[in-house]
Parts: sequence; structure tokens; C-alpha cells
Amino acid sequence: MSELAVGDEVLAKVREAMGEAGLDAIVPMSPENLAYASGAAPPSQKTVRSRLAAAIIPADGADTEVVTVKLEAPLVRSQSRLDRVTAYEEFVEHPIDVIAASLRERGLGSASIGVEIGYLTHADYERFREALPDADLRPVDALWQDLRMLKTGSEIDAIRHIGQAAQRITEECVKLVSVGSTERELGNLITERYHQAGGDALTMLVVGSGERSAHLNAPPTDRVLRPGDIVRTDVIGTAGHYYSDVARTAIVGEPTAEQRKVYGLLYDVHRRCLEALRPGAISSDIYAIYHDAMTEAGLPAYHFVGHGLGVTLHEEPFINPLTSIPLEEGMVLCIEPLTSVEGEFGMQIEDEVLITADGFELLTEASDILTIGA
Amino acid sequence: MSELAVGDEVLAKVREAMGEAGLDAIVPMSPENLAYASGAAPPSQKTVRSRLAAAIIPADGADTEVVTVKLEAPLVRSQSRLDRVTAYEEFVEHPIDVIAASLRERGLGSASIGVEIGYLTHADYERFREALPDADLRPVDALWQDLRMLKTGSEIDAIRHIGQAAQRITEECVKLVSVGSTERELGNLITERYHQAGGDALTMLVVGSGERSAHLNAPPTDRVLRPGDIVRTDVIGTAGHYYSDVARTAIVGEPTAEQRKVYGLLYDVHRRCLEALRPGAISSDIYAIYHDAMTEAGLPAYHFVGHGLGVTLHEEPFINPLTSIPLEEGMVLCIEPLTSVEGEFGMQIEDEVLITADGFELLTEASDILTIGA
Repeated sequence: MSELAVGDEVLAKVREAMGEAGLDAIVPMSPENLAYASGAAPPSQKTVRSRLAAAIIPADGADTEVVTVKLEAPLVRSQSRLDRVTAYEEFVEHPIDVIAASLRERGLGSASIGVEIGYLTHADYERFREALPDADLRPVDALWQDLRMLKTGSEIDAIRHIGQAAQRITEECVKLVSVGSTERELGNLITERYHQAGGDALTMLVVGSGERSAHLNAPPTDRVLRPGDIVRTDVIGTAGHYYSDVARTAIVGEPTAEQRKVYGLLYDVHRRCLEALRPGAISSDIYAIYHDAMTEAGLPAYHFVGHGLGVTLHEEPFINPLTSIPLEEGMVLCIEPLTSVEGEFGMQIEDEVLITADGFELLTEASDILTIGA
Repeated sequence: MSELAVGDEVLAKVREAMGEAGLDAIVPMSPENLAYASGAAPPSQKTVRSRLAAAIIPADGADTEVVTVKLEAPLVRSQSRLDRVTAYEEFVEHPIDVIAASLRERGLGSASIGVEIGYLTHADYERFREALPDADLRPVDALWQDLRMLKTGSEIDAIRHIGQAAQRITEECVKLVSVGSTERELGNLITERYHQAGGDALTMLVVGSGERSAHLNAPPTDRVLRPGDIVRTDVIGTAGHYYSDVARTAIVGEPTAEQRKVYGLLYDVHRRCLEALRPGAISSDIYAIYHDAMTEAGLPAYHFVGHGLGVTLHEEPFINPLTSIPLEEGMVLCIEPLTSVEGEFGMQIEDEVLITADGFELLTEASDILTIGA
């Protein structure tokens, strides 16, 4: 995957959308849209919230710019695909003032500027408005969501790469634990191999065994694996800004007839949802396949069965009863039928899938229920 | 450490501060202040930003409440110390509307309500204001910072526990690698042991070798350790909401005379900063000790030499030239003299320290430069 290729394709898409929206400049500040537009991800941006970072992309083709805290500027320079990187002094300069000054210097003090009001804090928004009193600050949260919904070829390669690694690692690691191992031991094995495979961060690794398999988003604990346990894993992390999100279900020892039955039902629902994916299919109709099948089987359905995947974990299109979006070629979705009863058990199958011109292509592919040695 | 004890002490402090500020209710929504006030940390709160969570703490002693997304409510119920947990349906209900409805039901529709304008997005702030048009929304970001600056005994125990683990793990793991190992191998060893020691997440692990030791906040890469390399580590992560932040410097093989000299100077500066810590000492004066010594030695100084540590990585008091806060008993600081020349090298020593009635107590304690086998 060429980082440059990602950047060229994405910047062209951003400029086209800006033209349609009548924006003079767009200033992404959220980690996802900054990374998407520039390739830059200042490491402490999410951990030290005052270290705001932003890109400035003027519509007229003038220099593009990343603004970041000085101490991370060398690293950001090595990541960024934009024309220049401006560093601000922590404690001395406020990043909002530095961004506003650059816009004024560019003659954009009374321009139409796209900002993310769903990311920018109220305090920073007010400071930005006061620093640029004549500018027209326009909310562009939906514009970014729409842009990111259709992936470029390089983005698809990046998602495929780490998604397939997540699948392979899960399959390998369940074979390395057995009765008496802990959730944490399985989690540590997955973590180590995820980093070895090029993963940057395991944002939210799920390992839930026994009754904990019902807990959504449960981190691994010291709970010991026992014969008959269901073990639910979900490998949620990032490599080069792009997420993996692959969930699997394993049984410690030989699955019972009941466990086989529930898994078989989930697997069948999973395949039926996948087979319905093609350009023009409506997201809520895919959800209905899942919901109806679970209801018929007398098993609880979850409130969604899928979502877009990219520089964020959950993005449009959501596959739920309330979202009726026609699918398009180039979307990357997770399809993840789940059934869980709190305090008892949870089972899930989650694959990543690309919408193609005439249907779908699996980026990962679940097979039969996984087995952990008893 | 008893979670209940943390909660009782903290809630009493919060109520006292609310009384002084004339607030009828306070509604923390940032992950740090929600965790601090309630003990709850919904796992996907940081990853899926739309899944806002909040606590509602009325001043009059009425029921305290956590509001969270339904799918994580069972886990949050097991974490929360507050009286009840209210779950909202993702996609169907907006969390801001659910929080506002609870406040109205409590008769607080026209009350004085403390909110974090430095966390709440502009879009959510506007929605909150529209949902409670008669309420007086008061910014309380500074109130939370002030409260959290002085730690309770249980908080200190929690920080000490994971801080000492971070130190021990670093010392152990540098002995397990040698020339030819990669930064990533060292990083994986630290990660595995951090989780084994009870760490929940390694938020930002730094392993920078050779010229990469100069990169601030550099994640581990496949760079191979070579004889003579400086290796800078910083174990930044959390256990039970509380951060560890412990940096060490190691040399691959025998340190050169120059490396010993620079480390010796840093170590001396570190001790001099520590010895100056006591109630009443001014934060900027501590910074001056570091800055003056580095300048005298002809080495670059960093723009701060310390910071508070707690449920966030960097919090008040900052030990920099611009912040003149008198230190108080119960503060927990990181003291972290650093010197780095981009493209060449970086060295750092970072310890966690508690301000006591008559001086300081080290929670971690750096010794001589660490050695990695050549």
C-alpha cells in the first residue's frame, strides 16, 4: 500500500466535496479526519486533549498544512502528506489561535470554513469564532462521514491487511490456550501477535469467557477457562490509521448440541446477510434478515448487525432498523450477527466485507466454531 | 485498595466544591471525570464518540446516576459506585436528551448545572442548552482540575501500585533483550507484563532507540538494537482508571564516557528537583532548577519538567516556567528531566512522587542508567 496514493486520492475527493459545498477551506481536527486527510496522527493527541491538532485544506489549491504541538512535530513531519507542518508551543500558544492566524494570513478571515462541531469542544469552538469573527463556520461532520463511506483502493488494501491478520491471529491463539488458561493469557497472546503483524494499537480487545461472553466489549480478566465455556473474542485495533474488527466464538472442549445449534443458526444468518449485500441493497433490509431469523428462533437480537469500518470503528452505513442507506460499491462493512443473554452466554461471528460492483467480497471469512483444548 | 473508599472520599469532595460554587448539580461527561466521580468507564466511550456517558450528581443528596449506552450498561453497573445506572438505546435516543430529561424529572430544569465545556462538543452543548433552555450551564472544567489535584489515600495507593509495576517491568524487560532485538520485541515484553500486573491499557508505550530516542512519544518499531544505542522507554498506561508514567534510559552495551556524563547530569538535576519538593514550593521554581542546570551544561531543556498524574496523564500542577502553583500535601507529580537533540539522541529519567506534609515520597525511584546486553 502506498501512503502517497491514499493521500492523492483522498485529497482529490475532499476538494471535490468542498467545491460542491461551497467551502473556501476545511479544517479537520478529529483524529480520524486529520489522519484521513493528512496521514498525520500525533501520538498524544487523544491522551492529552489540550494538544489539539488540525489540517488546513484551502479550496483554491494553496498550500495544505498540519498544525501540531511542537514536541511531536518531527514525528508528524515524517507522517504527513500535506505541504507543511506548523508547530505550536504547548502552554505558550493556544492551537486554536495558531490555526486562526494561519487562516487570516491566507486571506480566509471572512471565508466559509468547514469545522467539525461534533468533535470541537464548545470552549474551542467559541474561541475559534472569536478569533475569526467574520468567518462563516460551517458544520461539516456529515460531509466527512459521506466522503469516508466510499473507500479508495489503497484504503481497502490497508483494511484487508490488518483484518486478515486479526482473523489469523485469533485462529492461532485459541490453539495456544486450554482449560486452566485465563482470558488475560489469551488476550496477551493476541496482543503480542497483533503488534508483530504491524498493528499499532489494540484499541479494544474483547475476550469474554463463560457468562462473561455475554458482556459486550468485555476486556480480558483473570477468569480461568473451564470445560464447556463459550469464549467470545473481538480484535479491535488499528494499523496505519485503519481499524480491524473481527469477532469469533470458540468453545472449550467439545461443543454441546445446544452450542452447535445456536452457532449454526448464527452462521446461517451471517451467510444470508452476506448474500444480500450488493449495490442498491438497503441497509435496514439487511438488518431485517438478521432480526427476523433471531426472533423466529427465539433468540435475542442486537440493535444492529453491522456498520461501516475505516479510520473509525463505527461509521456509516449502520446496518440497523433505523438507517435506510442504499449500499454502494467501495463501502467496507462489518457484518456481525450476535446473540447474548446477560449473565448466561454470548455468541458472535463478525467478518469484514467489501461491496463490489455486483455483490460482495469477504475481506475475512469465518468458518466453523473454534475449539479450545479441554 | 477499596473502590468504595475511593468513591466515598471523592463524592464528599465533589459535593463540598459544588456547595462552594453554588451548583445545584454537576454532570461530568469526560472519561476522566466520569471515572473519578462514579468509578464507571464504559469501554467504547472513547472509541465510539457518539456513545456519550455521564454522571448526574445533585447537590441536595438525591440519587446519583450514571447514564450510559444500553449495550454497556451491565458492565457499567458492575463498575459504578453511584445509586443507579440509566441505559439509553443507541440510534433511538440521544444521550444528551436522556441526561436532560433526568435533570428535568429531578426538578432541576432551571437549576445551576456544572458542565465541562472543554470536553462537551459544540454540537452536544447546543443540544443540551436547547433541551434545558432555563438552566444556567456553568463551565466547571477548572473545578474538576482543582479537585483532582489533591489525591485521596486510595487514589495514591492505586497510582503507587501501577507505577511501581511499570518501573519493575521496565527493569526486568531490558534484561530480556539484547543486540539484534527490535524495539517492538522490547515493547511486546513490556506490554505482556503490564497486563499481567493488572494494567488495563498501555495508552502510549514509548520505546525509542538510537536516533529514535530523541522522538518524543515514539511508539516501538522494527528498528534493531545496535551496540552503543540509547534506548528510551516510557510506560504510559492505566490500571483501574489511574495512570502510570515512568520513563527510563538504557544503553546497549557499555555506556560511553559521554553517555555517562549526560545521564549523570540528568540524574543530578532529577535529584535536585526532587529535593526541592515540599508544600509551598512554587512549580515554576522547580522548573527553573532543571532549566538553569541544562542551560549551564549546554544541553537542550524541554518546555516542562513535570506534571500532575491521576485519572489523566497530564494534569495540574504543571511544572513549567508559566505555571506558579504552590505545591500541597497530597499532590502526585511526575518529575521527568529530559534532554534530546532531534536526529541524534534523547535521554530521560521520570519518577512519580507524592508531596507529603514535610517534603516528598518517591512512588518510583530511578537508579543508575540501565544496561542492555551487547
